[in-house]
Amino acid sequence: MVKIGLLGLGTVGSGVYEIINNPKNNLRKLLNKNIEISKVLVRDKNKKRNIDIPTEILTEDPYDILNDPEIDIIIEVMGGIDKAYAYICTAFKNGKHVVTANKAVVSKYLAQFLALADENNKGFLFEASVAGGIPIIKPLKQNVRINQISEIKGILNGTTNFILTKMAEAGLTFNEALDLASKLGYAEADPTDDIEGYDVQRKLAILSSIAFHNQVDVDSIKCRGISTISSKDIHMFKKMKLTVKLVGSAIASNDTISASVEPILVDENSTIATVKEAFNIVSITGDTIGELQFYGQGAGKNPTANAVVCDIYDIISGQYKTDHFIQNGEIKSAGIDLFSGKYYIRIDTKNKQKVLDLLNKNNIKHKLISMNQELILITDLVSAKSIEHFIEQLKIFENDYSYMRIEANIFDIDKCIAI
Amino acid sequence: MVKIGLLGLGTVGSGVYEIINNPKNNLRKLLNKNIEISKVLVRDKNKKRNIDIPTEILTEDPYDILNDPEIDIIIEVMGGIDKAYAYICTAFKNGKHVVTANKAVVSKYLAQFLALADENNKGFLFEASVAGGIPIIKPLKQNVRINQISEIKGILNGTTNFILTKMAEAGLTFNEALDLASKLGYAEADPTDDIEGYDVQRKLAILSSIAFHNQVDVDSIKCRGISTISSKDIHMFKKMKLTVKLVGSAIASNDTISASVEPILVDENSTIATVKEAFNIVSITGDTIGELQFYGQGAGKNPTANAVVCDIYDIISGQYKTDHFIQNGEIKSAGIDLFSGKYYIRIDTKNKQKVLDLLNKNNIKHKLISMNQELILITDLVSAKSIEHFIEQLKIFENDYSYMRIEANIFDIDKCIAI
Repeated sequence: MVKIGLLGLGTVGSGVYEIINNPKNNLRKLLNKNIEISKVLVRDKNKKRNIDIPTEILTEDPYDILNDPEIDIIIEVMGGIDKAYAYICTAFKNGKHVVTANKAVVSKYLAQFLALADENNKGFLFEASVAGGIPIIKPLKQNVRINQISEIKGILNGTTNFILTKMAEAGLTFNEALDLASKLGYAEADPTDDIEGYDVQRKLAILSSIAFHNQVDVDSIKCRGISTISSKDIHMFKKMKLTVKLVGSAIASNDTISASVEPILVDENSTIATVKEAFNIVSITGDTIGELQFYGQGAGKNPTANAVVCDIYDIISGQYKTDHFIQNGEIKSAGIDLFSGKYYIRIDTKNKQKVLDLLNKNNIKHKLISMNQELILITDLVSAKSIEHFIEQLKIFENDYSYMRIEANIFDIDKCIAI
Repeated sequence: MVKIGLLGLGTVGSGVYEIINNPKNNLRKLLNKNIEISKVLVRDKNKKRNIDIPTEILTEDPYDILNDPEIDIIIEVMGGIDKAYAYICTAFKNGKHVVTANKAVVSKYLAQFLALADENNKGFLFEASVAGGIPIIKPLKQNVRINQISEIKGILNGTTNFILTKMAEAGLTFNEALDLASKLGYAEADPTDDIEGYDVQRKLAILSSIAFHNQVDVDSIKCRGISTISSKDIHMFKKMKLTVKLVGSAIASNDTISASVEPILVDENSTIATVKEAFNIVSITGDTIGELQFYGQGAGKNPTANAVVCDIYDIISGQYKTDHFIQNGEIKSAGIDLFSGKYYIRIDTKNKQKVLDLLNKNNIKHKLISMNQELILITDLVSAKSIEHFIEQLKIFENDYSYMRIEANIFDIDKCIAI
């Protein structure tokens, strides 16, 4: 009998409870062991719940679970940082394995958790913390053993991808699409973490920490969301046969890591452009394996709980060996030095002369493709740094401009002039 | 020190040897063990090779390797069926783990190999046998534990996908595209296994055996290749905004399994349509996880060898627990009863009256969309069985017709009339 303590009974926690207790799946038969979720941490024992669970296993005291010598595995699905951090550390010290779906705490303390798991000879698995139901952590760990990983990128947030899909395909404005996402349950009450890119920033920090052998400082990852993308932008992208996606990407060269979360323009016929609604995709590129892409549901109760239960299975069957894939040493910062490309820029025409002067001053070659109401231009190949520098110097309101890198190989600047 | 015996030093074998002996990767450091390929089976020790390998480790006698008590793991990358089968069985009986990339032997003897591995308490891993560098076997095994898998499908052969890409995008005929594939090394001297779909048939047998808990009889999987697709077909598909792909697909409902390898028409804006050149994609759908897709290089020296080495790592680190995912019992046949859809049919007009009579007789509703030189029509929703029955009754030369199922959700039959 394997006893499991569950910290949190929200969406993911309920899903984990239901899967473990679903008589239809093959878990017990395959493991040849019985499994039981013996205690569950909740904030309020008396709250009415949509899940059929015996009230006697609910507790409001985390140490009732963490100090229970019969419990082998702690599942942390409560979210947040400080308490989750404290409970995970205690769990390891008390000789328990830990599985978590909490990207916030993993992105901040990954190296420390791996060291603690290793010291205590326990497993620490966190597949569900990135891209929900898509198996990406495990394949990435596998490929890192053999490959030098040069790039990771992907659509890692379902809410923003849903919003961008509705803007492009149903002609909604950003606010209309956000409202629809809220109504359908894709967006949280406070959607800031999603739409400003912080959710992706955390996931990208975890992926790049594994890929590049160093814990990457989550706060060092440059982050821009999608709230300044206008219907005018979407209209122009269609004309240029481009699609905008909120992309987290990280590249490495020698000892330098660059990482960013920002809207990127891709070819409308590319694989990434076909990823619609709330779906996610992750791409990794290594020197022997080439490019791999993984597509699926990046969030939601069942897919995320599915990933948690996969990790539980691996722990119980002893397949959790901690790879020392993160080098000891300080936490590494990511810059944007390695990024470059052609950029799409839209700016209110009232700033026209300032814009043109600054572009000249910064030696950014460009072609104007529209001057109606707003100034729209495409630059020649420039570094991300010089574009950021230009934008800083502009000193205008965020709502008066938008800009994004174009990652379409076939994109021909000369064709834009005809638009 | 872990000693490995390599059976075969062709493309994949050379790749495995090179990766294991590449000082740049982290294998030894992560395993905290030394690894050595101590003996290699070749047909001719004196053959000149493009690989830097000490001749004293080469042997022409398989039992020199299989009976060596110092060798822990056998890597079978020689291909073929009978000898590979015999050597794998001997390896297990002699207490060795086995890793293979050989789809022919795995598709035929999977259940038996799993039982042998289990009896001898050894690992049997075969990630490289399906879709080369794409990690699919492992994620599928993981998800099968929790999910009822309802469908598996994918582009599982790079040669045919390359040919179809060149026919669609460069306007080549089938023969021209096949010649180009041969010149570029994508097609083998005898390309029959690829273009007639037998290569995909084997891979699909392996995937569906895992997904549906029963070894699926490889020869029971209906198989049609791409050699009868004409430039005229490709031209029509473009007009209809469809793309043709050679798709292996398997679905299950209750105790029935249906599986086929055949050209399928998909929406030109779908993810699967963006998979071009020699790339592969595999999709699995489960009841909790939803749809997952995995994309990458399905063949080639480095990606395939990469998958083999991932398996070697799992064996050495003890992460190879044999899931009893295949039920004991007889080998199961796949039919086509569960498939249905709208079909595209092209037939030489000289058979016009016969075709129309037979369609009526079989009660297949349809719309004619072209009658110039060739008769082209789209059927209403029909079962695959009734289409196969109709084609059989036609009794005309294979080169005088082509037909394929349309898997595009948005496809509107009425729009075709305008073409």
